[in-house]
Formats: sequence, structure tokens, C-alpha cells
Amino acid sequence: MREEATAFVPGHITGFFSAHTDTDPTKAGSRGAGVTLTDGVDVTVRRHAGANAADSSVVLDGESITVEPVSTVLETLGVSARVEAEADLPLGAGFGVSGALTLGTALAANRVFERNLSWNELVTIAHGAEVQAGTGLGDVVAQAYGGIPIRLEPGGPQVNRMDAIPERARVEYVSFGELSTEAVLAGDMEAVTAAGKQALSRVVEEPTLLSFIYASRVFAREAGLLTDRVKTTIDDVSDAGGQASMAMLGETVFAFGTGLSDAGYEPTACATHPAGAMIR
Amino acid sequence: MREEATAFVPGHITGFFSAHTDTDPTKAGSRGAGVTLTDGVDVTVRRHAGANAADSSVVLDGESITVEPVSTVLETLGVSARVEAEADLPLGAGFGVSGALTLGTALAANRVFERNLSWNELVTIAHGAEVQAGTGLGDVVAQAYGGIPIRLEPGGPQVNRMDAIPERARVEYVSFGELSTEAVLAGDMEAVTAAGKQALSRVVEEPTLLSFIYASRVFAREAGLLTDRVKTTIDDVSDAGGQASMAMLGETVFAFGTGLSDAGYEPTACATHPAGAMIR
Repeated sequence: MREEATAFVPGHITGFFSAHTDTDPTKAGSRGAGVTLTDGVDVTVRRHAGANAADSSVVLDGESITVEPVSTVLETLGVSARVEAEADLPLGAGFGVSGALTLGTALAANRVFERNLSWNELVTIAHGAEVQAGTGLGDVVAQAYGGIPIRLEPGGPQVNRMDAIPERARVEYVSFGELSTEAVLAGDMEAVTAAGKQALSRVVEEPTLLSFIYASRVFAREAGLLTDRVKTTIDDVSDAGGQASMAMLGETVFAFGTGLSDAGYEPTACATHPAGAMIR
Repeated sequence: MREEATAFVPGHITGFFSAHTDTDPTKAGSRGAGVTLTDGVDVTVRRHAGANAADSSVVLDGESITVEPVSTVLETLGVSARVEAEADLPLGAGFGVSGALTLGTALAANRVFERNLSWNELVTIAHGAEVQAGTGLGDVVAQAYGGIPIRLEPGGPQVNRMDAIPERARVEYVSFGELSTEAVLAGDMEAVTAAGKQALSRVVEEPTLLSFIYASRVFAREAGLLTDRVKTTIDDVSDAGGQASMAMLGETVFAFGTGLSDAGYEPTACATHPAGAMIR
């Protein structure tokens, strides 16, 4: 009997998206595109003797936290567990950390507790839990897929359609703070949806890094999501001859190559992750 | 302008399959399941100044070879290139080396020659080329997907359906030699198809390593594909308390954990690859 299992889930920055509602959270979600990151989250699930699902605990970088979709996943699998995660990335700043915690918990818990679910079933459970909690619409399926995923059709893997930009790149980012995904998603989504559709058709037509970052920048502006600090930073990168955009949804700017360094910032550097989530 | 690009494509052992024909090779293929391997093929594509597609060359581990689907991919992309590959695995022994060469060429050539195709488009081109050449039916899509892929519906990524067994494991293998994929696929496929369908429904019902290897062993026997040496080896592993089966299609036996070592063989050891093909 296995006492613990660990899954690595890459971080995910969404460049642009359009939201899609459905009464079934495993069918709801988003279209859009983003980059998965070599910076990510290691999620370890341990048995938790004698307790029930409600007693499960989540510790992120040493601090106890409550992550609604993680609890939902453990309840759905009918297990009580101790979840310990180490993240290279901050929570709430547009890196898909809640999605990573949720998907990593599903993959690792299935292994520890021998739930015998398939990959698609686990991704579906994690995606549905995220959507239901309002903490994300597309991170989980993107993180399961890896690379530079394009979400052509919304929902979990049993209904969605995915493609990807077949490239890899160095990624730089600076983060100024959090934006509430729940608050943005609860706001006026009309401009977001219109801008998201336009951006997606541009990237489908030309699935390259350059068209992705360009489409993302136009999206951020037209969807009305830019904050002043983010706008200034993106402009600084443009002035230095680079291309940057905003992470959806966080007060975070990302660029390919050395875009932020060249503009005088001191970014964190990583790379696009060549693959999706994986059991360690 | 980029002069070269390299893609790594994991090896792939098919445990069981059923063949599906279609007049469109991108829709034909197979259902089944297998394991992708950390042992794989690095494929480097280099520009080849002044030549046309017919002048493209393929060198595998220092030897010039002709691989029909690789030529097809280069012609489809309209490029002339020098393809150099280094393989951890033998060609023709059931490890998906021809699929790896084909998919790796598509991914790397798209990058070098800036063809701006999407991931799905490249996988579709490589899959169709393999099917058309008769060198494989499911390796390319499995190698693009990674892990321990289940091919629920045949064809390229625009029409197929994939799932996976969410596990990882040490893999051991011994290879006694080649079997001709073309010859087997040209033979009587009725027993193969019937056994393949049964194996798939077993693994869909219980997507675990144990049910996969069990279903594969039953398939190899019922499809009438076991050679004497392969049968003896599988029996030796069973006698030693392990589980092994035959790689489709090669005179190769694979086992999880230390199955072959425990039975006194001197296998090569690697592991399931946690991800699909990736650009280096």
C-alpha cells in the first residue's frame, strides 16, 4: 500500500480567453490560449489515518490554507488526505496555482488511494471543481495538456478540443500583486468575450509565439483588464523592442525571451513547460 | 533564421490494438493502449541549402536510411532537409522508432522552416504519413500524447479520442529481433481485431498498469502473434511472479518493475515517459 504520491503540475499563464457557462461545470470553461511554465507546483498527497474527507488539510509552502476545489476533489474521490504543496509561483497572481493544486491533488490522490480512475476522469473532476468554485475556467485543462495550449472548445477533456503552438521559449515575468479571478468573472464579461474570440481566431490562423503575444496584448487592452502598473510595464517592454502581455488574471506581466530584462526590470525567468502535469 | 531544431519523441510499445481502415489515412489508425518510454529518439532537422524535397536525407545513428513516412512529411511541408536522428531503441522491434522519426521530423521541420502549423496539424501529417506507408497505425498519436496512452478512437488528433492510465513505472525490455509491421498488418486481422476490442474494454473499465499488462498478454495469445521465444520469456516472467507481454509489433518482451530481471534476463531498463513528444 502506497503511503504518498506526488504530482508536478506546471504553472499556466492565460494570455486571452472567453468564458463559457454551462449548468454542468465539467462542460463549462473557457476558450483561449496560454503558456504552461517550468515553474509550477509539486503536490504531495498522504494518507490521513482514521479521518473523514472533511478533515483533509492543505498546506502550501508550509502554511495551512483552504482551497475549495481541492476539498471538492478529495470529497469526490471519497478520501481523507493531507495535501502538501510547494509552489514556485505566487497564489492569486495569474499563474494557475489553484488549478495546479486541484489537478495535482486529483492525480496524486488517485494513485495513493488506488481509485483506478483514468487520466480524463481525473482531469474532468479537477476542472469541474475549479469551475464550480469560480477560481478558474481553463487552467486545469491547459495544465493537463502542457506546452503552449490553445483551448479551442471549452470544458473537461471529455468534451473540449485542444491544440497547441508547437514551440518552446524562455519566459520572463514580474508580478505586482493579486487580482481576484472570482471578481473579474462575476463582472461584465461582454467585452472580454468579444476580445477573446478575436484573439483566438488570430492564433488559430497563425499558431506562433509572436501572434500569441500580440493577440494577448490586444485582448488585455480591449477587454479593459489592464491596470496602470501592468500597462506601463508592457509599454516599457515595447519601447525596448520586446513583446509582453498581462497574465489573466493577476497583476502580472510576462514576456518571451529577455523582453522584461531588456526593459530594465528584474523578472523571474523560467521556460514554457514541454508537457502537461505528471506523476513524479 | 534558425538553422536547425531538435525534437525528442519517446519510444512507444503497443500492448494491444485493433486496426481501423479508412480511405483517408489521417482518419485511419488503431484503437489500443501502450506505454511511451523515456528511451526514445532525438530528431534534428537541418536546412539543406539549394536542394529540393527529393534530395532530403535521413541518417539514423550515423547510417543513411530511407524512411518513407519521413520523406512524405518533408514533401508535405514542402522542404528539403537533412534529418539526423539518434535512437536509444532498435528500428523494427516494436518500439515505434519509425513513428518517432516521422513525428520528430514534422515538429522540428516546422520550427526550422517556420511553417506555422499547429501541433494538431503536425501530428496529423505525421500520423497520416505513417498509416499510408503501413509502418504504424497508432504510434504517432500515442507518442504525441505521452504517458501510458489509451487510444479510444482511431485517427489523427482532429478525429481521435485519447485517454491515459494515470501512473508511471519502471519498464524493462528484451528484444530478440524484428517483425515486419507491414507483413502483420497485411495478414488476417480478424483475430487481432476481436482480441483488441476485448483488451480495450478491460482497460477502459480499469485503467491501471496491472489490467493493462494482463489485457496485453491475453491479446498477444489470442491474436496469434506470439513467437516461441517471446512466449517462453513471458512464461519465465510469470513463473518468477511477474507480468510481461509482447511489444506490438516486434520480437520484444516488456515488463513493469523488475519482471524480466527477476526471471534471470538481462533487460534494458527505462521508465514510462511522463509526457509526449517535445521540442528541445
